[in-house]
Amino acid sequence: MTRPPHDSPDLVVVRHTPLNAESPPAALERDVTPAAHVYVRSNFAVPALPGDDHRITIGGAVREPFSIGVAELRAMPRATATVTMECAGNDRVSMRPLPPGELWRSGAVSTARWSGVPLRELLGRAGVAPDAVEILVEGADRGLVDDEPGTISFARSLPVREALDPRVLLALEMNDAPLAPEHGAPVRLVVPGWYGMASVKWVARIEAITTPFAGRFQSRRYVYDDDAGGVRPVTRMRVKSAIVAPADGAIVPAGRVVVRGWAWSGEGAIARVEVDAGAGWHDARLGAPPSEDSWTPWEAEVELAARGRYALLSRAHDAAGNVQPDVPPWNRLGYGNNAVRPVVVEVV
Amino acid sequence: MTRPPHDSPDLVVVRHTPLNAESPPAALERDVTPAAHVYVRSNFAVPALPGDDHRITIGGAVREPFSIGVAELRAMPRATATVTMECAGNDRVSMRPLPPGELWRSGAVSTARWSGVPLRELLGRAGVAPDAVEILVEGADRGLVDDEPGTISFARSLPVREALDPRVLLALEMNDAPLAPEHGAPVRLVVPGWYGMASVKWVARIEAITTPFAGRFQSRRYVYDDDAGGVRPVTRMRVKSAIVAPADGAIVPAGRVVVRGWAWSGEGAIARVEVDAGAGWHDARLGAPPSEDSWTPWEAEVELAARGRYALLSRAHDAAGNVQPDVPPWNRLGYGNNAVRPVVVEVV
Repeated sequence: MTRPPHDSPDLVVVRHTPLNAESPPAALERDVTPAAHVYVRSNFAVPALPGDDHRITIGGAVREPFSIGVAELRAMPRATATVTMECAGNDRVSMRPLPPGELWRSGAVSTARWSGVPLRELLGRAGVAPDAVEILVEGADRGLVDDEPGTISFARSLPVREALDPRVLLALEMNDAPLAPEHGAPVRLVVPGWYGMASVKWVARIEAITTPFAGRFQSRRYVYDDDAGGVRPVTRMRVKSAIVAPADGAIVPAGRVVVRGWAWSGEGAIARVEVDAGAGWHDARLGAPPSEDSWTPWEAEVELAARGRYALLSRAHDAAGNVQPDVPPWNRLGYGNNAVRPVVVEVV
Repeated sequence: MTRPPHDSPDLVVVRHTPLNAESPPAALERDVTPAAHVYVRSNFAVPALPGDDHRITIGGAVREPFSIGVAELRAMPRATATVTMECAGNDRVSMRPLPPGELWRSGAVSTARWSGVPLRELLGRAGVAPDAVEILVEGADRGLVDDEPGTISFARSLPVREALDPRVLLALEMNDAPLAPEHGAPVRLVVPGWYGMASVKWVARIEAITTPFAGRFQSRRYVYDDDAGGVRPVTRMRVKSAIVAPADGAIVPAGRVVVRGWAWSGEGAIARVEVDAGAGWHDARLGAPPSEDSWTPWEAEVELAARGRYALLSRAHDAAGNVQPDVPPWNRLGYGNNAVRPVVVEVV
C-alpha cells in the first residue's frame, strides 16, 4: 500500500484536511513539474465521482442544454497545453500584516502538461445565447464554510469571450497520465494565464449566465477590495519571477554563481528579467519557454566575492509593461503577492 | 588552537570581514546569552590594543582633562548590569523593499551581564562644563568607507543627562569574564535601553562637546529620515518581542503547544505580551526579567489542533504605551524593525 500524498515528501503540506500542499523547491527546478509534485489547492474534500461514468451538464442560457459523460469526452479530439498555474494565495506568508487564509510560502505554483477537450467545443454544441455574459463552471466539491449557512459548492465564472478561447481545456490528463483525484479527476477546467482558482476541479456543471456570477468564491473569496468599497474578482496572474537556484538558505562557494529561475505573467509574455545580488540590477538571459502558456526560464551570473550573507533578487517585466513591485501589494485576503522576494544565501 | 569564532557554529555569520554575526536561535532560549553566542556587530576590523596598558583620554568641555589606563579602571569600584542589547539593523531582512546594509535576520539581539565602571565616575572626575550638551565616545576602531574620503573612527554621542545615568558603564567584563576582542576589549561602553550602536567598543576617547555630534555614525548611518528632509539619530530600542520556542520551521505534535519568548523595550518596562496562533490575540503570562535592563520572559499556551501549517505571532506593549506594529516600519537604511514577526510551524 502506498502512502497517501500528504504523508510523503512529494509535497510540502500546508493543511491536511482538506489537502493543501506546495511543490517542493527542488521540483520547481524542472520546466514541467513532475505530477507527484504539482501543488494541490482544495477548498473542500475530494468528491467521490464515478470516473468515466461521471457526467457534466451544460445548460443555462444556451440553445440546447445537454449532458455528456466523461467516456464520451475521452472520445473527442484532444488539445494539449503546457500551462504554468499559480495559486492566488502563493506567497501570502510574506504579506504584512499577515492576512487570513492558507499559509502558502512560494511553492503554490507548478507547470504541467494538460490534455483534454477545449471548453469551446461543448459551448459550441450547446449554442451560447447572445445575452449570456459569463460561463459558470461548478465543481462537484462542496462543504460547509464558517461564515455562511448551508452547503456551498466550489464555482467560478469566466467572461464568455475568455471561455471560448481554444486554450481553455476540460482536462482529462496531466503530464500524459489520467488526472489524479486531488487534481480534479475525472475532469477539470484549465484556464491558462489565470490564477488557479479559475481552473475548477471535478467539473460537474457548466452554465451560461446572463448576469455576472456572485457566488462565494467570486464575491467573498478570491477577490480584491476596490477603492469604492466593493470587490473585484481575482483573475489573471500578475507578472512574477522565482529564483530556483541557488535555494533560499543555500551555502555556496565564493566566486561566480549562476542564478536561475522562472518568470511568468498572465498579462503578457515575459519581456525582461533583472537580477541583483547587492551590486545593482542587471539583465538576466531569457531562455525559451516550454510553451506560450508556461513560465520563461532565465539565468544570470553574479559575483559573490566575499564570505558572508547575500540577498539575491529577481524582477520580471512583461510585454504589457507590468513589473514586479518591491513591496508585497497588500490586500485583505492576501492574494496576488507578486513582489520581488529576496533569496538569502551564505557564501563560504 | 581553537577555531576563530567566525568559523565555529557559535555564531551565525552575516559578514566575515569585518565580523558581523548573529546569536544562534537556540542560544536565545537562555535568559543570559552565553558569551560565545553573543551577537557581534563590527563596522571596522578589531583594533590591536595593549590590554591593561590601553589608555582612555577624557577631554573637551571639562574642567580637568585627564587620561586613565585600563589597569587603573580595573582598580575602581565596579557596577554590574544584565542588559539586553539589540542591533539597530536586526530583522532588516524582513523589510520591503530590502534596504542596504548588513543582512540581519532575527539574531542580532543578546542579553549579557556587564561589569565595569560607571561612565559618570570619569565624567565627575573631569567635571563636565555647564555648556556641554553631549558626551562623545570614540572607539579605537577605524577604517575606510566607500562614500567618504579618508579614515573614519567609530564614534557616537549621548546627551549629557543620559551619559550621567549610573547604569551607563565602561564595561571590562562580560558574563563574569574579561571582554573578548570582538566585544570591545579591553573596555567598551554599555548603554542600557539603546540600540547597540550606542555601546561603543574599544573606547579610546571621551569628550564633552558643546554642539551636537554630527559624525558619520550619527548623521549618515544609524539615522532615520525625518519628515523635514533631515535625519534624526537612532537612539532607544523600540518595543519588540521574539518567539524562541517553538523555533521557526519547527515540527510539533498536534495539541496544546507552549509558546515562549522575550519582550523588551528601551522606552519602558514590558506591560503586556499577546500571542496569536490563528484564532485571535490573547494575553501571554509575563515572567520576571533578569534585571530592569533586560528582556522580560513570557509564555502562552495555544491549541494547534489540526495537522498543517500555523503562524505564531507575538506582540509586546510597553509601559509607555508603545506596541509593536504589524508592518515593518520601513526607512531608507533599514533600522528599528520591531514589527510582529510570524513564526511558522508544521503540526504533524
